[in-house]
Amino acid sequence: MDEHRGGHPESESGARVARRRRGVESARRPRESGVPQVKFPAILRRALKPIEPLRDDQLEDIHQASLTILEEIGIEFMGSAARALFEQAGARVDHGSGLVRIPRAVIDTALKTAPACFRLTPRNPARAIELGHDAVAFGLVAGPPNVHDCVIGRRAGNLADYQRLVSLAQCFDIIHLLGNQVTAPQELPVATRHLDCYRANVTLTDKVYHCTAIGRERALDGIDMMAISRGLTREQMVDDPGVLTIISVNSPRRFDEAMSDGLMAMAEWGQAVVVTPFTLMGAMAPVSIAAALAQQNAEALAGIALTQLTRPGSPVVYGAFTSNVDLRSGAPAFGTAENARATMAGGQLARRYNLPYRASNASASNIVDAQAAYESQMSLWSSVMGGANLVYHGAGWMEGGLTASFEKIVLDVEMLQMMAGLIQPFDTSPAELGLDAQREVPPGGHFFGAQHTLERYQHAFQQPLLSDWRSYPAWAEDGAKDATQRATAIWQQALAHFTPPPLDPAIAEALDAFVAKRREERKHASD
Amino acid sequence: MDEHRGGHPESESGARVARRRRGVESARRPRESGVPQVKFPAILRRALKPIEPLRDDQLEDIHQASLTILEEIGIEFMGSAARALFEQAGARVDHGSGLVRIPRAVIDTALKTAPACFRLTPRNPARAIELGHDAVAFGLVAGPPNVHDCVIGRRAGNLADYQRLVSLAQCFDIIHLLGNQVTAPQELPVATRHLDCYRANVTLTDKVYHCTAIGRERALDGIDMMAISRGLTREQMVDDPGVLTIISVNSPRRFDEAMSDGLMAMAEWGQAVVVTPFTLMGAMAPVSIAAALAQQNAEALAGIALTQLTRPGSPVVYGAFTSNVDLRSGAPAFGTAENARATMAGGQLARRYNLPYRASNASASNIVDAQAAYESQMSLWSSVMGGANLVYHGAGWMEGGLTASFEKIVLDVEMLQMMAGLIQPFDTSPAELGLDAQREVPPGGHFFGAQHTLERYQHAFQQPLLSDWRSYPAWAEDGAKDATQRATAIWQQALAHFTPPPLDPAIAEALDAFVAKRREERKHASD
Repeated sequence: MDEHRGGHPESESGARVARRRRGVESARRPRESGVPQVKFPAILRRALKPIEPLRDDQLEDIHQASLTILEEIGIEFMGSAARALFEQAGARVDHGSGLVRIPRAVIDTALKTAPACFRLTPRNPARAIELGHDAVAFGLVAGPPNVHDCVIGRRAGNLADYQRLVSLAQCFDIIHLLGNQVTAPQELPVATRHLDCYRANVTLTDKVYHCTAIGRERALDGIDMMAISRGLTREQMVDDPGVLTIISVNSPRRFDEAMSDGLMAMAEWGQAVVVTPFTLMGAMAPVSIAAALAQQNAEALAGIALTQLTRPGSPVVYGAFTSNVDLRSGAPAFGTAENARATMAGGQLARRYNLPYRASNASASNIVDAQAAYESQMSLWSSVMGGANLVYHGAGWMEGGLTASFEKIVLDVEMLQMMAGLIQPFDTSPAELGLDAQREVPPGGHFFGAQHTLERYQHAFQQPLLSDWRSYPAWAEDGAKDATQRATAIWQQALAHFTPPPLDPAIAEALDAFVAKRREERKHASD
Repeated sequence: MDEHRGGHPESESGARVARRRRGVESARRPRESGVPQVKFPAILRRALKPIEPLRDDQLEDIHQASLTILEEIGIEFMGSAARALFEQAGARVDHGSGLVRIPRAVIDTALKTAPACFRLTPRNPARAIELGHDAVAFGLVAGPPNVHDCVIGRRAGNLADYQRLVSLAQCFDIIHLLGNQVTAPQELPVATRHLDCYRANVTLTDKVYHCTAIGRERALDGIDMMAISRGLTREQMVDDPGVLTIISVNSPRRFDEAMSDGLMAMAEWGQAVVVTPFTLMGAMAPVSIAAALAQQNAEALAGIALTQLTRPGSPVVYGAFTSNVDLRSGAPAFGTAENARATMAGGQLARRYNLPYRASNASASNIVDAQAAYESQMSLWSSVMGGANLVYHGAGWMEGGLTASFEKIVLDVEMLQMMAGLIQPFDTSPAELGLDAQREVPPGGHFFGAQHTLERYQHAFQQPLLSDWRSYPAWAEDGAKDATQRATAIWQQALAHFTPPPLDPAIAEALDAFVAKRREERKHASD
């Protein structure tokens, strides 16, 4: 027979569970003070070995193919500063086409100085993140032009929503850092909106954030504002970094000038660079996974080499974003089987070079529904179990990255907490093995009142944020709300209880002054 | 900068993707003939090594604790036939309390004869399943008293729904077998409803099915009907099994008489037995995972030993169902971090004994929503990557197993196809590494028309069943349907196109005659 017997209300054990369900439903944890959260160590670590889908010889095949791309086919760098560095290091540079052919010796030398692991410290040192080895950090969604919630609906990104979204990120400890602009504040001037975003990041949160590295100036502004918030100079940040940027390659095999300049500005000042090829199979990369991985690897190694040519030892991360398109429509897809396989293989490549690894929590769904959840889970499992140290877009990504969703943040926070619980180490000490409890409880009995249970009652299991485990009748009577509807109430409650983290008034003043000065300076900037 | 650039319609690559989206939306694969499915080998195999959360010494700790439970604390067997077998093998039996204390030598001997891998063959040999090593089989949900779809809503299980649900299982190749009654046909007499269920299984599908092993008779009826459908005698099935059963332990540490009698009947006739302790942490098992695993292991080993004492070499599977309850309400939870961790650890235990492993795709959600999807994904990843050979309840489980859901079957089929894709081997042959495509496409170009793409266009990526990858405007214009609403249309279409698999009229007649005879014989049965 079957779980039917256990789960059916008419069966012995099922009836026992059902009785407990009915009797104590009202005792569910109250949410008066914000929202329930699961406590994890400040630096989350994966106690499980990563999944390795590639055999060693296959890993080598991809590595060798990527070296052929670098040496023979070449990578285009549109920026002359980047080309000059490569030329100086021994690469063959065609300044007309911008094509740079990079010998393996240049890559090998660069990989020698790239750190395997590093720390980024924001204004609250307790929120420092570590990238590398078995550390795992989750970031807020980055870059969507639109915003969505189930109250107002879909709209263009704007500063008010920006502020509410980063406030939400501050509410949840499992969101360890802010990515690039959580949504584009489209009503603000392009030349200075990064200043408004940084100010929101640094006043509404005390976490690590992302510098927009479109050219040098935006990157340096982000570094400077983090430095001010920490009471440091930009120079003091060089060996004690606090911010990061993503350099998305203009795949296939192209870095535009703004990208390489931004990369070099960050590396020059010792801040972290994540080099992420944007290799959508079938569009910006070949349709076969092995070929897309070879291209991803070549592009990533080229960008990583550039960080080390700029400043040997500067912190850098191997980024991966290999997914597929629908070949019938060209629509990009995320959280697919192919995406997950490529993500896990990417982790093997990063570890081959002893580099930190970045992946993403992505989905193509247009709404927070079952598809959003299963695609995100495919991304999350393959990222975390693929060995990612940085899970970018960890919370809030919807609609293939075109929309930041309030409900998706709540859904993702629940899933991130589950992933964090999943990777904790086991404890098989005699107390945890519980033989005393077995001696205490008779066959067919139950452990509700056992001493072993009472001693662990409070913290035995993770308390959910979003999941509803009530019986069907209790759930139906309470309005039969699905997870998306419940998510709305949760972010509303979190924001209603939000207080910005304390900030020294002198620092707040210095930040305001910096923003005012830079706004004036960039008033007529065209980039 | 960020994926924003790639994904944003205003960016270069984003615009390219968006153009393709708009232009070819109408070219999406038509669904006139049933539903799209991804083709996989008849026996699915996991090319990835399983996740192993326990260190070797921790695995040994749990093993040793379980032997202590077996030897010193004991397992209650309420059936005298089972006790007699254990006594004969050298166990210490207290016939008053039913307590059986099993020395490790008895377990060791039993484990020597249990096969590491075996095959079950139904009436269509092409649908044979393999259980063991790296094979993976997915089963239909089993045992819910209720049924739900989004058209009619929730109702009591009944034969008409039973027939539609097993027909749906026949529609989807990724559902490899039927579990115990997909829903209880509650309008039918308890003594004979198993006959109606078997008849539906064997006429509407040609797949392996589950025998209800509540006592000997129901089990033998299931074996006989499979034998008739294959044109074999019950004796001929002994070395060529075709059915399986789940023996859910009445945890903690109790096997009731109907269970052990059913187990023994199946083993006696060489059919497969899956021994599954029902160890809900905090209720039927201690709250700590290590203790629950020790109990699970003791109970599983006791049941497994009984199959081998009944008939050495009979096919048996190590089953796991360790999840947790909400300690505030007693409500059972599934697809939690704790559930996933226990599932992966359970796989290590099964492999320690060189036994096939069974886990489940479970969720506590009361509806097909984001919670149903993320809990099921937690279950699925931990099952498949935990090394499960049999993923029971693979499709259709809702509401903690109390309801079989039509929409959940569709959702699960999509997720099962993704898992099947995930575990395929990589190909890094020169053709797949695609250096020619890199030579063909210039930097910043695209691979849409590359020779490498055109050669692989048709089968490069898995085509989704449920996922909607269209742009937001196209999706919104088409009714803004979420995944659950789309699932309704999909199961309706699948059923509309359903044709039962061909069945020799003589066999159909023999089955009818068997059912009529057995119905008469069991008219007054009280079990």
